[in-house]
Amino acid sequence: MRASRFFISTLKEAPSDAEIISHKLMLRAGMIKRLGSGIYNYMPMGLRVIRKVENIVREEMNRAGAIELLMPVVQPAELWQETGRWDKMGPELMRVKDRHGRDYAIQPTSEEVVTDLVRTEIKSYRQLPVNFYHIQTKFRDERRPRFGLMRGREFTMKDAYSFDRDVEGMQRSYQIMYDAYVRIFNRFGLQFRAVAADNGAIGGSGSHEFHVIADTGEDALVYCPTSSYAANIEAAEALPLATSRPAATEALVKASTPGKAKCADVAELLGLPLARTVKSIVLAVDDEEKGPAGTQLWLLMLRGDHDLNEVKAGKVPGLANYRFASEAEIVDWFGTEPGYLGPIGTRKPVKVVADRTVANMSDFVCGANEADFHYTGANWGRDVPEPLVADLRNVVEGDPSPDGQGVLAIQRGIEVGHVFQLGTRYSQDMKATYLDETGKPQLMQMGCYGIGVTRILGAAIEQNFDDKGIIWPASIAPFEVVLCPMGYDRNEQVRAEADRLYAELQAAGIDVILDDRGERPGVMFADWELIGVPHRIVIGDRGLKEGRLEYQGRRDAAATPVAVPEMAAFIQTRLANA
Amino acid sequence: MRASRFFISTLKEAPSDAEIISHKLMLRAGMIKRLGSGIYNYMPMGLRVIRKVENIVREEMNRAGAIELLMPVVQPAELWQETGRWDKMGPELMRVKDRHGRDYAIQPTSEEVVTDLVRTEIKSYRQLPVNFYHIQTKFRDERRPRFGLMRGREFTMKDAYSFDRDVEGMQRSYQIMYDAYVRIFNRFGLQFRAVAADNGAIGGSGSHEFHVIADTGEDALVYCPTSSYAANIEAAEALPLATSRPAATEALVKASTPGKAKCADVAELLGLPLARTVKSIVLAVDDEEKGPAGTQLWLLMLRGDHDLNEVKAGKVPGLANYRFASEAEIVDWFGTEPGYLGPIGTRKPVKVVADRTVANMSDFVCGANEADFHYTGANWGRDVPEPLVADLRNVVEGDPSPDGQGVLAIQRGIEVGHVFQLGTRYSQDMKATYLDETGKPQLMQMGCYGIGVTRILGAAIEQNFDDKGIIWPASIAPFEVVLCPMGYDRNEQVRAEADRLYAELQAAGIDVILDDRGERPGVMFADWELIGVPHRIVIGDRGLKEGRLEYQGRRDAAATPVAVPEMAAFIQTRLANA
Repeated sequence: MRASRFFISTLKEAPSDAEIISHKLMLRAGMIKRLGSGIYNYMPMGLRVIRKVENIVREEMNRAGAIELLMPVVQPAELWQETGRWDKMGPELMRVKDRHGRDYAIQPTSEEVVTDLVRTEIKSYRQLPVNFYHIQTKFRDERRPRFGLMRGREFTMKDAYSFDRDVEGMQRSYQIMYDAYVRIFNRFGLQFRAVAADNGAIGGSGSHEFHVIADTGEDALVYCPTSSYAANIEAAEALPLATSRPAATEALVKASTPGKAKCADVAELLGLPLARTVKSIVLAVDDEEKGPAGTQLWLLMLRGDHDLNEVKAGKVPGLANYRFASEAEIVDWFGTEPGYLGPIGTRKPVKVVADRTVANMSDFVCGANEADFHYTGANWGRDVPEPLVADLRNVVEGDPSPDGQGVLAIQRGIEVGHVFQLGTRYSQDMKATYLDETGKPQLMQMGCYGIGVTRILGAAIEQNFDDKGIIWPASIAPFEVVLCPMGYDRNEQVRAEADRLYAELQAAGIDVILDDRGERPGVMFADWELIGVPHRIVIGDRGLKEGRLEYQGRRDAAATPVAVPEMAAFIQTRLANA
Repeated sequence: MRASRFFISTLKEAPSDAEIISHKLMLRAGMIKRLGSGIYNYMPMGLRVIRKVENIVREEMNRAGAIELLMPVVQPAELWQETGRWDKMGPELMRVKDRHGRDYAIQPTSEEVVTDLVRTEIKSYRQLPVNFYHIQTKFRDERRPRFGLMRGREFTMKDAYSFDRDVEGMQRSYQIMYDAYVRIFNRFGLQFRAVAADNGAIGGSGSHEFHVIADTGEDALVYCPTSSYAANIEAAEALPLATSRPAATEALVKASTPGKAKCADVAELLGLPLARTVKSIVLAVDDEEKGPAGTQLWLLMLRGDHDLNEVKAGKVPGLANYRFASEAEIVDWFGTEPGYLGPIGTRKPVKVVADRTVANMSDFVCGANEADFHYTGANWGRDVPEPLVADLRNVVEGDPSPDGQGVLAIQRGIEVGHVFQLGTRYSQDMKATYLDETGKPQLMQMGCYGIGVTRILGAAIEQNFDDKGIIWPASIAPFEVVLCPMGYDRNEQVRAEADRLYAELQAAGIDVILDDRGERPGVMFADWELIGVPHRIVIGDRGLKEGRLEYQGRRDAAATPVAVPEMAAFIQTRLANA
């Protein structure tokens, strides 16, 4: 590609509404252009990256035996009604009526359509397994679109759907996709981590998220550096920090803790470690049939230095539909305001759930259900009945790994892929069956597998940038190599060598752009550093007189002189080793 | 590709709602699958064809200097309001509200978005010309979707938009696109014709349609076999069939023509050629301010054997907003019912427009404005005032070519491409200006260029099929070559040769599918003839013993034996000559 025939549009400053670095840099590099809230034009430079991402995804999906098709953007509501998602999904699902008043969804994903397709196409066990995928425009009407391509409304996603005879088959299909994802993210040249994930409302037996590692990531990833354990913090199991409860040694004493509503302040006042305190979190569960009278309050107890994991709380039997209690409810049930709550002597009987670690504590500190007072020396069984016990907290760095192989570390990530074992969640509602060897209809076992194609761009940049701009891995860079001739428009020798090298690199199958715009070197260099092309070759008058060109990798501190006839081989070696 | 890893789903019978051959064959061959009215899943086999079409379009657009980007499917209404199309377009434009109640269009085309993009990106004449294109999902809420991909609601289109400094630049950009389209349709391997088209409501100075020639086409294409003249019948000029009007020789006579309301019947009764009769067509033009009282009736006169061209009628000064008159209006203005109308002695004064040919007739036959009576020997100037004269009719085969180079022929076509000179139609409304050399803002001159990507599939089939199925041109076939081994699942020698040849053809860059399903020969052959793969190689036990394979082109009546070691070269020659 010659720059003069391409469209390059860089900006010195990013628009002020761009909050994160990838959004700023994509706007400045002319990769995207905002059309509306969460809706972007993919500009020529950005589209090249998207196409490279798509091609890697497509190659690896095909290699894994998945079959590409294309399902429509506009999908009849009837299918979404069959699975109940038409009602369940809320305003995130963009809905539209046609001229006859019929309802359609603008697809955020395609479980319904692909299941409809498969239930009519697949008749026999002989046709299974099958895995269909497409790379298609999606729309999700996010409440607060932000961060450019990271949380847009219109975006491109690869979604694949596997159908199997039985659970074992589904698990095999799932593993094939998992392995393909590992190959895909390796080919992107990004640091990533696959972590066990919570299945959420979808249910089913297993799911993993693929995260690009970045300090700015929204998710906390828990992993064990000395084993293969890795999970999203939402799903990471917290083991009890003591395996058994020591015997009580202290008497229960009501201590005056005026104005000390936080565990840390109480610990400081009492001269105790924070790990001796227990915090109280109050949840409420409503009973729709009984109205306000049916509401039950629950007291969740965590060690003072631990944080509640809200996903885990929802898994405690009885808490599936919990909400946080209001202050009025707390006063009514505990007789005092938050800050001094505890399990001992509540005004009304609450259900008490202790985190595994709290359950094994003795002589702990908790609120006395009276303003400005806490108990010390509190003990389960003696001062308060034995609680329900559950894993309620987020793990922290240094916790024991659930696989017993070491201690946990935490890093931040950006979710760019998700694989799910769906089981019969959709095939049941939509009656997607096949006939087994005995001619009996059986529900298909389904998996689904997504990669956020456009989101990859944002995630790759969050991981790879410096103060000059983007640093693309070569496999998804808009161009692999840029040729920067100094004075292309006025120096014949420079122009001739630039044209020759351009032709040579093109013939070698290298994706090269020749900057023939005749811009000043400073402008040229700044543009390509901002755009993030990983390899740069400078062709200058002075160097040519000495028979050399200058190579500089995007992360290199300085340029490397390379003899003119050796440059093509040099670049090929660099690309092969990338 | 191995057939066992692909998805092949053929049907013996097409669903009964498929009316035309391309729709039937695409459904039977498993290329598309209906999801809703005018909305289709593109199945794996069909998607391969779409991708090949897209790639040819993309390569030639890039070669022509157009730059690919991607504009969103969901577009803010504000831009569509700027050009007035939000109100003008009616229900064909699919509209949707987001969760905040803001209006969006689902794009049927992208003039507004690209003009918005260009007005902010292009500042100076130095940045012009520029031509942006994308290949993107479109939606048009057709009143009556039909014919599969030929008139669907969701479809894929390539749309390009050029921006130039001045009209000459726009014309150059237009010619570059025209030439690219010729290359594209040649590469598709389709018989096509570019014809001058009516600019319609868009206005501007020129436009051409590209049609795939097919007997089943909706459009009539007029061309001169001995010159380069070609136009859609809507736009084809009809010259007067006589250059001057002969003198009157007959007296005006009122003849009894009981029950003869049609020109052909009148001519037969009177023993005159049909070409001596003149038919009357009554149009009405309303005056919105004056209401019903402001309506004016117009009488359009065509030779008895000619047909009205409704596009041309709309170009007569005063008739831009015409409609056909109602029977009640006709009786009110002419004093009689249709069938006996004429320009002589109407009850109320009507405006008379004669087709060019009628204007040069003398002694003609027309209605007498009295039931069951016609005039013979009618003459302009003597019996009725000289009429307004205009080109009102469709040309017919044998008419003189407007370029004076021969006579016209007519064939039918399917519109698959359209190039337009738009001028400032959009840049004016949206204030898309650049600064010229003197620093003065000037409106950009725009062109737009569309290709109906998915429609190409339907058109290609309408042109290329037989009673066995589709016959794809090799360049857009889902596979170029199919290998049909007889007994792949049970004959080791056959399997070994099939695998060997498959690897050899793949290594030669040929898009080959190996049918390793183990189907019976009859099923295999029927499937691939229906799907329309252009080249077939049969690998059989008996042939192998004699060292030969069998080749058969999709249009060949019989197979050709080819020695095993020569087959790869043989196929490459066939593909090169396709």
